[in-house]
Amino acid sequence: MESGDPKTVTACVLIIGNEILSGRTQDVNLHFLASGLNDVGVRVAEARVIPDDSDIIVDAVNHARGAFDYVLTTGGIGPTHDDITSACIARAFDVPFGRNKEAEAILLAYYKPEDVTPARLSMADMPEGASLIDNPVSRAPGFQLENVFVLPGVPRIMRDMFEGMKHRLSGGDPVLSISITSHLPEGTFAGPLDLVQERFPHVDMGSYPFFRDHKLGANLVLRCADQGMMDQAADAVRQMIRDLGSEPIEDETSTGNGPNQLR
Amino acid sequence: MESGDPKTVTACVLIIGNEILSGRTQDVNLHFLASGLNDVGVRVAEARVIPDDSDIIVDAVNHARGAFDYVLTTGGIGPTHDDITSACIARAFDVPFGRNKEAEAILLAYYKPEDVTPARLSMADMPEGASLIDNPVSRAPGFQLENVFVLPGVPRIMRDMFEGMKHRLSGGDPVLSISITSHLPEGTFAGPLDLVQERFPHVDMGSYPFFRDHKLGANLVLRCADQGMMDQAADAVRQMIRDLGSEPIEDETSTGNGPNQLR
Repeated sequence: MESGDPKTVTACVLIIGNEILSGRTQDVNLHFLASGLNDVGVRVAEARVIPDDSDIIVDAVNHARGAFDYVLTTGGIGPTHDDITSACIARAFDVPFGRNKEAEAILLAYYKPEDVTPARLSMADMPEGASLIDNPVSRAPGFQLENVFVLPGVPRIMRDMFEGMKHRLSGGDPVLSISITSHLPEGTFAGPLDLVQERFPHVDMGSYPFFRDHKLGANLVLRCADQGMMDQAADAVRQMIRDLGSEPIEDETSTGNGPNQLR
Repeated sequence: MESGDPKTVTACVLIIGNEILSGRTQDVNLHFLASGLNDVGVRVAEARVIPDDSDIIVDAVNHARGAFDYVLTTGGIGPTHDDITSACIARAFDVPFGRNKEAEAILLAYYKPEDVTPARLSMADMPEGASLIDNPVSRAPGFQLENVFVLPGVPRIMRDMFEGMKHRLSGGDPVLSISITSHLPEGTFAGPLDLVQERFPHVDMGSYPFFRDHKLGANLVLRCADQGMMDQAADAVRQMIRDLGSEPIEDETSTGNGPNQLR
């Protein structure tokens, strides 16, 4: 993982919600955030899926905000009793938790007076010092506290909010990525690829096998912040494939690791 | 989370792979495992997505095997240089790592002699004491060491291997689940639901909002190991919905929290 990047900026994503851990819901937020953060030069170094449990959330937030440059949480900021993320962030930072006037004003302007319930207004309860994250879809804002960004779990809303807040992140050097498809199975090129990896220790090389159109193969993904080094490594991988009697295929748009993959 | 269950058995799922953290690949293994484990009475209490980094994998395995009844890992057991999970498990347990004769025999029987490469045979390198997990798809086995189960990352293969090994898990009391759909928005029932939750502290109640057919609503999911308590709580939730002027809909097969959900 360690590369020669002059500057690596890391993030931890905390997916909060019993529904993911019970198997009821397929999480799609990590995939979106990992890709979106990568685009702004932030590498997701770890992700955790944790239950709606205060002590666990507080511990995970405190671990993550110390260990990584940024923390993004999803889930648990709605109006129901199982939405406890905001209060947990306050506990993690040991700051007072209460009504955020700016957030309250947004909610009061949005809901019809007869629809203003204590539960809805509770979505304006935040840690002291929180800076709001705009919600263009359903108004109830998320917030930032220091290096922690608190987003909702509903993917459609989370995505729009992330797009609106990502300029707040100071990314490192963008990580370049090249994907080269080989129609050789992994077992055939694993040894030679290991030698190529040894020659380019600062290029992260991953091999993702697939079984497609009745053919075994693999996507070889190279990641590095240095264009020159990346080009050299990619040439070496292409040559390796040719030396093994096959032909490399550039495949930068592949989504790869689907359900039909084989070693 | 704590319920009145006589016996709760927990698991931690470790998703190992840079491709998930870079946003290249959408993980689908956690969803499958969470659901499959739930079916045999094992609750996934935490999941972590971690990179192909030895120290991080070793630390995560040692944390998880101490904190939970079972650990399941996915990813990193193929033949390429980035497949380091098996060696990390040996390090975590501080046992020797080397050729497993039974696994080697399976591979030698499967591959044509000319296809037997050192890289392919390296898939038979395992921690001492490993008990094999059969791979009916592409033969290279996974393994179990004490309470840790090591599975591949390719979903199609992982699934078949899990089905073949899940009888080794001693589950707790199966957790019952009821999903009741309300066409009231969360903000309307959040207060009343909180009161119902207080009456039934041993029933885990989650609210998952959606926006479907241009209607706001939410799935209320109740989880509990005790059928009688569950029935009472479900009746209370249905009555709550009726008291608010709507009609509860039983919706046990809903997959719920999709991209179109709103508070």
